[in-house]
Amino acid sequence: MISEKTISRLTNYQSLLRQQQTQGTSHIFSHQLADLARVTPAQVRRDLMVIGYSGNPRTGYHVGDLQESLMQFFAFSTGIPTVLVGVGSLGRALLSYFMTGRSNIRILAAFDSDPMKTGRSISGCRVYPMTRLRETIADLTVTCGLITVPGSEAQKVVDALITGGIHGFVNFAPVRLKVPPTVFVENLDVTSSIEKAAFFARSYSLKTQEEQAHE
Amino acid sequence: MISEKTISRLTNYQSLLRQQQTQGTSHIFSHQLADLARVTPAQVRRDLMVIGYSGNPRTGYHVGDLQESLMQFFAFSTGIPTVLVGVGSLGRALLSYFMTGRSNIRILAAFDSDPMKTGRSISGCRVYPMTRLRETIADLTVTCGLITVPGSEAQKVVDALITGGIHGFVNFAPVRLKVPPTVFVENLDVTSSIEKAAFFARSYSLKTQEEQAHE
Repeated sequence: MISEKTISRLTNYQSLLRQQQTQGTSHIFSHQLADLARVTPAQVRRDLMVIGYSGNPRTGYHVGDLQESLMQFFAFSTGIPTVLVGVGSLGRALLSYFMTGRSNIRILAAFDSDPMKTGRSISGCRVYPMTRLRETIADLTVTCGLITVPGSEAQKVVDALITGGIHGFVNFAPVRLKVPPTVFVENLDVTSSIEKAAFFARSYSLKTQEEQAHE
Repeated sequence: MISEKTISRLTNYQSLLRQQQTQGTSHIFSHQLADLARVTPAQVRRDLMVIGYSGNPRTGYHVGDLQESLMQFFAFSTGIPTVLVGVGSLGRALLSYFMTGRSNIRILAAFDSDPMKTGRSISGCRVYPMTRLRETIADLTVTCGLITVPGSEAQKVVDALITGGIHGFVNFAPVRLKVPPTVFVENLDVTSSIEKAAFFARSYSLKTQEEQAHE
């Protein structure tokens, strides 16, 4: 099994290549991609060997081809079928972002317990009541679930989605979820990330001030 | 200097305690907090020693007191003064989430280059034109910057904010930023996280199917 770190780097290369392509870059050298990703060129070459891709030493990697190889490796060429649970402010933002089709993530359905939000479409995505979660995902092939409910609801929601056969989740709720070993959860807690950045910001800022005082 | 991993765990404890408090929990044992955070009880006790907090072995930690100690340690009691750059769908969602005051993150100002979005308030936060970024942050004490601009703009924005004296960032753009060693950046790339979860979901799902076929 390929390590989580390798997969993180490969998905990051994909983001970076997508951006390079929109900027009109046709070829990129391993050292350039390494520079963008903040890793060594040797690391880039090793990682791309995992997906069986090697560049032309003279011209570098062809951005479009490499992206295609990455998509095929991830089996994402036809998109990642996804559902979202919790249509609050963050859920709405994710719908409005991903329903525009600017990535290969396809949100097939959204769910919420608030009857004011269900039975209609938000950003082009149908919002179903939570009571219809099980039957709705049974009719779909879903790879990934996005959890944007409050922390107190998150475990119940992930349990229902796992019963429905989903093995991968991105959890935006500020709780750790209990899942079986055959299920993968990536936690994205925005508040904790800001607190962490703020902590180091203060430490670095004090250090800079002290150094300036000693000059 | 305390390690990034320790700080990540401490901010996670804070999120978990916040949630426990809203559920009315007054005391929590280290093994309970460890269970929620998916670490060992010994790890929890070691981490809380860093902030100088020890519980009562009979009653466990007092949730409110522990939260207060964490806030004091992080010097977050008066809130984390933050600015946000890029009022697209994600930027708006973050404003609507954080301007309700459900955390200690205070967004003091937002910036955007689109004149349609500037000169007014969104979710109670004033949106300034990018041209006024430097003078506006000079008047404020800002600890953390949230980067929600497109990838192609992110480096320019972070450079301007660093010049303005900000040392900590949460970067939502799918690019890696070049920053001096006295600046901390936490990357939150939602698309990459979904791709990663989808990759492992497919691997685990295949493995489960194979195991079932062999039974």
